[in-house]
Amino acid sequence: MPNVSPQPDQLQVLAFDIFGTVVDWHGSLKAEVEALYPGIDGDAFANAWRAGYRPAMARVMSGELGWTRIDDLHRMILDSLLPDFGLAHLDEAARVHLNRAWHRLNPWPDSVAGLTRLRRRYTLCTLSNGNIGLLADMAKRAGLPWDCILSAEVFRAYKPDPRTYLGVASTFDLRPDQVMLVAAHHDDLEAARGCGLYSAYIERPLEFGAAHVKDVSPVAGNHLHAASLEALADQLGC
Amino acid sequence: MPNVSPQPDQLQVLAFDIFGTVVDWHGSLKAEVEALYPGIDGDAFANAWRAGYRPAMARVMSGELGWTRIDDLHRMILDSLLPDFGLAHLDEAARVHLNRAWHRLNPWPDSVAGLTRLRRRYTLCTLSNGNIGLLADMAKRAGLPWDCILSAEVFRAYKPDPRTYLGVASTFDLRPDQVMLVAAHHDDLEAARGCGLYSAYIERPLEFGAAHVKDVSPVAGNHLHAASLEALADQLGC
Repeated sequence: MPNVSPQPDQLQVLAFDIFGTVVDWHGSLKAEVEALYPGIDGDAFANAWRAGYRPAMARVMSGELGWTRIDDLHRMILDSLLPDFGLAHLDEAARVHLNRAWHRLNPWPDSVAGLTRLRRRYTLCTLSNGNIGLLADMAKRAGLPWDCILSAEVFRAYKPDPRTYLGVASTFDLRPDQVMLVAAHHDDLEAARGCGLYSAYIERPLEFGAAHVKDVSPVAGNHLHAASLEALADQLGC
Repeated sequence: MPNVSPQPDQLQVLAFDIFGTVVDWHGSLKAEVEALYPGIDGDAFANAWRAGYRPAMARVMSGELGWTRIDDLHRMILDSLLPDFGLAHLDEAARVHLNRAWHRLNPWPDSVAGLTRLRRRYTLCTLSNGNIGLLADMAKRAGLPWDCILSAEVFRAYKPDPRTYLGVASTFDLRPDQVMLVAAHHDDLEAARGCGLYSAYIERPLEFGAAHVKDVSPVAGNHLHAASLEALADQLGC
């Protein structure tokens, strides 16, 4: 696919990465943990929890674990993490409640407004490794206006498996180049381009917190690069 | 499960049958066919198309056909039906367009208002044998305010397979008795009850058209019985 912007009339579906792209997992988890357990380093806790995510998915995709929802992977990581933060004493109810913090992540300030504008022209879906129930709970709480919630759980494969990106096109009976992935992560976007989708990078310099600012410089290959979802709506004329 | 109404605080998710319950497939198809092909008997055409639906799904569930989306089953039925109505001459583009009439079905007059009220208290999802793309297109066009689109396509089984009803509960990590199926078809509701879900029957006397009025008398077993989705919202205090 040539590295040119898609024609707005060609695109039909925008598929969104969620964790970090649409919602602020770090800030939300940090705030929950610090409110529940004063004295805990919420910044370190949030980043440690998230750091366990890729290794856990790798165990599923390698076949070491059978198909496992992210809710259950998050819980496995949480259980292994609690002793490091002096929270080994948390009981089952407290762990269940804390694990569901991932269902209560807050959107970035531009997300709802940007999505609302983009939805006037395009079909908007999630394409997240998060499970369907997590994504539906999050959307209902945060007012994220999806037309459809798609997830690794639907395709029984985690991104960056091609079945996920091609699965979006197939779900809507479209060619891959009628779909654009919107994400704050270059590896996700690169895998989508490898399947023939268009790609839009969203700058989220504070994804890992103010103490760990992320480089959001443009990278060759992405078809669009925007500072926010409102800026993406501007670029697509919505 | 006792045949008593669920406590509103116990229910978390309402899962909706779509064809006939939320949208008027007969009236919508009849109007499309008659507008496209004047002189065709749209009433008979719509009912013949729908009559092929269960036998086609049975071929999938028996293993005779591999997993097949409803879009493709609708097309197989359509192709077999056209000669009977003097439309064997329709070309590929015309058949593709006509087949997508199922994506353009209109809601019953009470559907959007009823769903909007119910959504304030409950998580609303589809549970239809229609494929995800069909349901998402329909929802976007008609303004149906789903929190989540679930489909036979997610569970790789058609209703009344228990995997579909239990799949809704599992998706949201709920017990079956925290979910209620809302449908205009007793067999669907009976199968859901067999899995431990609550059941609400919606009267749709004109599902098959004014020339074929359906008996909508109450049947023992259903937990709720309502004349419309607005009436259901009344019963649930929404």
